[in-house]
Amino acid sequence: MNTPQKIVLVGAHGTLGRAVHTALRERGHEVITASRKDADITLDITDPESIAALYRQVGRIDAVACAAGTVPWKPVTELTLQDVRDGLEGKAVGQIELVRQGLESVAEDGSYTLITGILAREPIRTGTVASLANGAVESFVRAAAIELPGRQRINAVSPTVFEESLDAYGDFFPGFDPVPVRRAAAAYVRSIEGAQTGQIHRVE
Amino acid sequence: MNTPQKIVLVGAHGTLGRAVHTALRERGHEVITASRKDADITLDITDPESIAALYRQVGRIDAVACAAGTVPWKPVTELTLQDVRDGLEGKAVGQIELVRQGLESVAEDGSYTLITGILAREPIRTGTVASLANGAVESFVRAAAIELPGRQRINAVSPTVFEESLDAYGDFFPGFDPVPVRRAAAAYVRSIEGAQTGQIHRVE
Repeated sequence: MNTPQKIVLVGAHGTLGRAVHTALRERGHEVITASRKDADITLDITDPESIAALYRQVGRIDAVACAAGTVPWKPVTELTLQDVRDGLEGKAVGQIELVRQGLESVAEDGSYTLITGILAREPIRTGTVASLANGAVESFVRAAAIELPGRQRINAVSPTVFEESLDAYGDFFPGFDPVPVRRAAAAYVRSIEGAQTGQIHRVE
Repeated sequence: MNTPQKIVLVGAHGTLGRAVHTALRERGHEVITASRKDADITLDITDPESIAALYRQVGRIDAVACAAGTVPWKPVTELTLQDVRDGLEGKAVGQIELVRQGLESVAEDGSYTLITGILAREPIRTGTVASLANGAVESFVRAAAIELPGRQRINAVSPTVFEESLDAYGDFFPGFDPVPVRRAAAAYVRSIEGAQTGQIHRVE
């Protein structure tokens, strides 16, 4: 039987966030949701002060699970410098800041689970900034894992396109084999309840 | 016999930059150096206006080779938000900006060769920001390759520690098998004169 954990779930309303929420509750965990709106705690991961406020509110926690992150989608020939910076802030720096500011709040043996995606390794049209941000986060996860204090652990979940998102995004992923979002949610459970660290859990 | 190319070499003074400079001259190319000082053109890759000025000065070129990029080195527990942003700007955004602003200046079939490093895939202590920036650039290279205009190509050179740098950095790379810097310089030649794109040329 797994030990119930107190978990902050960032980005609880998207296709992935809802599935992670369900999976964590089914495993008996206490889930505190943090999102831009309609969550236990209001959070904007691109605002460092908002992250600081989150950790002041939640006290000691066992895990941080992030299913949030936004990037601009444009052909490389149309990208602006601001697009590049926005994507890095919105998906990489925001998630890294969740870890950096969480070091004092996460319990011994606690974990961070960040979201990346298949674009880190396989590109699609208009996905340059997503690729860039995902690649940054994956290398960060591998590196931070060897230095985190108090036996804290960190992993990433790196899924391909979800079956549930095909109507919205399917045209961008021709020939990619979609997965049910519950498989990505299961990877969060594996990261949170398991003992591994520095892993990129590919879901494809 | 290879066709001589007009090549901008960014970061011509470091251990790697000097070796790339030598290798490109030996192959008969015209090399225009761009560095913070003592170069044909003064360039700071963290300053977008400096990059714009570079391209205004050089006119049509066949290739851009970058051997420049700086990141802060600190344990993850001591990193500040500014360290994270500085590393992304200094090694990722700066190199991406060389590509983004170069799209109109690089000739058909021309190339960009960026620098990353083994920390993208294997972490060392104090190297979190280096890993992060290298991972970002490698995923950017794979993604940008499929959308660059005019059959432009892009690759990264991703070396381990150099034999020539062991005195300075060897203690950070215990058990890593060093390579002579000329092998990394050869990877630039392979990227510039070859026909591949979207490749991460590992030198280890």
